[in-house]
Amino acid sequence: MNEQRIRTVRSNLAEMGLKQALFCDPTSIWYLTGYTTEPYERFFGLLVTADRTVLFCNNLFPDATGHADKVVTFNDTDDPVPLVAAELDAAALLGVDKDLTARWLLPLMDAGAAAGCKLASKAVDDARSSKDEEEKDLMRRASAINDQAMAWLAAQVKVGVTEHSIAERLLGEYRSLGAEDHSFTPIVSFGANAADPHHEPDETVLAPGDMVLFDVGCKYQHYCSDMTRTFFTAEPTERQLLVYNTVKQANEAAEAIVRPGVTFAQIDLTARHIIEEAGFGQYFTHRLGHQIGLVDHEPGDVSSTHDEPVREGQIFSIEPGIYIPGEIGVRIEDLLIVTADGCEVLNSYPHDATVLPLA
Amino acid sequence: MNEQRIRTVRSNLAEMGLKQALFCDPTSIWYLTGYTTEPYERFFGLLVTADRTVLFCNNLFPDATGHADKVVTFNDTDDPVPLVAAELDAAALLGVDKDLTARWLLPLMDAGAAAGCKLASKAVDDARSSKDEEEKDLMRRASAINDQAMAWLAAQVKVGVTEHSIAERLLGEYRSLGAEDHSFTPIVSFGANAADPHHEPDETVLAPGDMVLFDVGCKYQHYCSDMTRTFFTAEPTERQLLVYNTVKQANEAAEAIVRPGVTFAQIDLTARHIIEEAGFGQYFTHRLGHQIGLVDHEPGDVSSTHDEPVREGQIFSIEPGIYIPGEIGVRIEDLLIVTADGCEVLNSYPHDATVLPLA
Repeated sequence: MNEQRIRTVRSNLAEMGLKQALFCDPTSIWYLTGYTTEPYERFFGLLVTADRTVLFCNNLFPDATGHADKVVTFNDTDDPVPLVAAELDAAALLGVDKDLTARWLLPLMDAGAAAGCKLASKAVDDARSSKDEEEKDLMRRASAINDQAMAWLAAQVKVGVTEHSIAERLLGEYRSLGAEDHSFTPIVSFGANAADPHHEPDETVLAPGDMVLFDVGCKYQHYCSDMTRTFFTAEPTERQLLVYNTVKQANEAAEAIVRPGVTFAQIDLTARHIIEEAGFGQYFTHRLGHQIGLVDHEPGDVSSTHDEPVREGQIFSIEPGIYIPGEIGVRIEDLLIVTADGCEVLNSYPHDATVLPLA
Repeated sequence: MNEQRIRTVRSNLAEMGLKQALFCDPTSIWYLTGYTTEPYERFFGLLVTADRTVLFCNNLFPDATGHADKVVTFNDTDDPVPLVAAELDAAALLGVDKDLTARWLLPLMDAGAAAGCKLASKAVDDARSSKDEEEKDLMRRASAINDQAMAWLAAQVKVGVTEHSIAERLLGEYRSLGAEDHSFTPIVSFGANAADPHHEPDETVLAPGDMVLFDVGCKYQHYCSDMTRTFFTAEPTERQLLVYNTVKQANEAAEAIVRPGVTFAQIDLTARHIIEEAGFGQYFTHRLGHQIGLVDHEPGDVSSTHDEPVREGQIFSIEPGIYIPGEIGVRIEDLLIVTADGCEVLNSYPHDATVLPLA
């Protein structure tokens, strides 16, 4: 158990008027208890009340002893619903994880296990959003590995290579650098494929002169990195360079204004205005960024409608892009930590327009 | 839309006393409409009423036009809950998918969108359980590819190879055989690692004499295969052969009794008794099998407590195993289709004890 994190969640629950909450997101449970498993269709939950924590685990899961004040176990042939109900205060509201499925929620409600149910994920999402020092160090390390991987990726760009052939070798490179996994499916896009921000690597063969976009991330001791760079493979045309430098300027202007108290919307709009003023506004089709930590996309995005101020310790991406269908796609993405008076950018791989030599 | 499948679901809902149901499992939606997407945290749903179907899609999803009687679209900044509520009969019960999360279910209930909510996944799960001819053909093809992949796997067993180095190359082999993906994370276990039925491939190096267990499956045009074979790499000891042949006998005895009307429990117990009588009962620690189709594990397992009779067109695994911690693990798994008077085993890779030559 991480007592400090559980205290923060209890305090957040109290502000929501809740004395008890049931979390089921395996990542949130890991964050609070140091224990997790992949439950698939089986029930897995952590009850947090004002004075205790209870983990509910199928006997097929690894032993959870010591990871909560109480561990309730059951078999595949047992119904976990009455076991959960027995630990609840039926006269009080129950906070529930937004990911709790109807399969468990409806029977709990039908059993009268609580006086009502209320979404309570925000209590743990808010805690996860502000990273402690241990988490910041792991995030720095994950991004340092990603910087090294980007250099490796740039070196794979050769005449005749396919997107898929680069993407499928990245995991091996990550592992040799000490990471355990991808944090998301890597994006490798050649030429006009980059104009689709979510293009999946396919058998497209690199043609000399194609621009190349890499959007990749690894997991290092559970924490995620995420970075995008876009390269040239021939001297850029004037228009290519205009698009590239507009995205670079948008990225750097947004990063420059980050400090506690500035809103997520202000950061998004700073980048968006630069792209709009260059005449490419219609081609920047997504939010500027997202929070990140134990998963690649954490709640609380960097978007024009998110009016909350950023807080010290939050970590998010800044990833402006311009996508002109059939023609060009450029995105430049870094992660950063909000500090007391600004921010610390976690990626050091350069932003400058770079022409890769084709061997 | 697949009119026949939707008719079956409507009939199943009527038997449950439901006039409307909201499904959100992307696989079920694909099964009924031929349309699917990976919604991540965004809302994605299919409403089935007595006389119409309505798909709810974020504008970021691919265009769903024509895949339901009505398609309701929305943006990230819209709340989909009132859009769903507007299509419901607030005076009637609403059937809900077991996977519908609290994030959407609680606001729908709070909005009074229906007279109450009731789990209704069974209406589509039951339809999915009985495969039509098109589905049977795809399942046959997925398992034929898996048979070929097993031969390839057996050929990779060489002195000095690691579990991980074999596992990571399997996807390429599947693709070259025409499949699109794994149907689950492949299991490659050397020696005593096989005694953990869910062992994940690691850097364990093959030692001469190790037994080798492969539990692998691919997806072919959305449909899954899943097969296990266990090999020797030296002449087996008497005890190894006893364990192996007990599992083989359990597999074949169970497959031999499958026909419409026999219960899932009878099939499980047929295999289980053989293993118990050989003195290994305590080492067969899981259910005998699971249904399979669009996902690897479909609802309705082959277990000692599942008293329903099997029906023609159902497809499930038969996978007895013996796991003696620290010593040995053997599992032999096939898929089969229930036919009018027996079953058709989909895997033709042999069951016989096989010693692989170590090059």
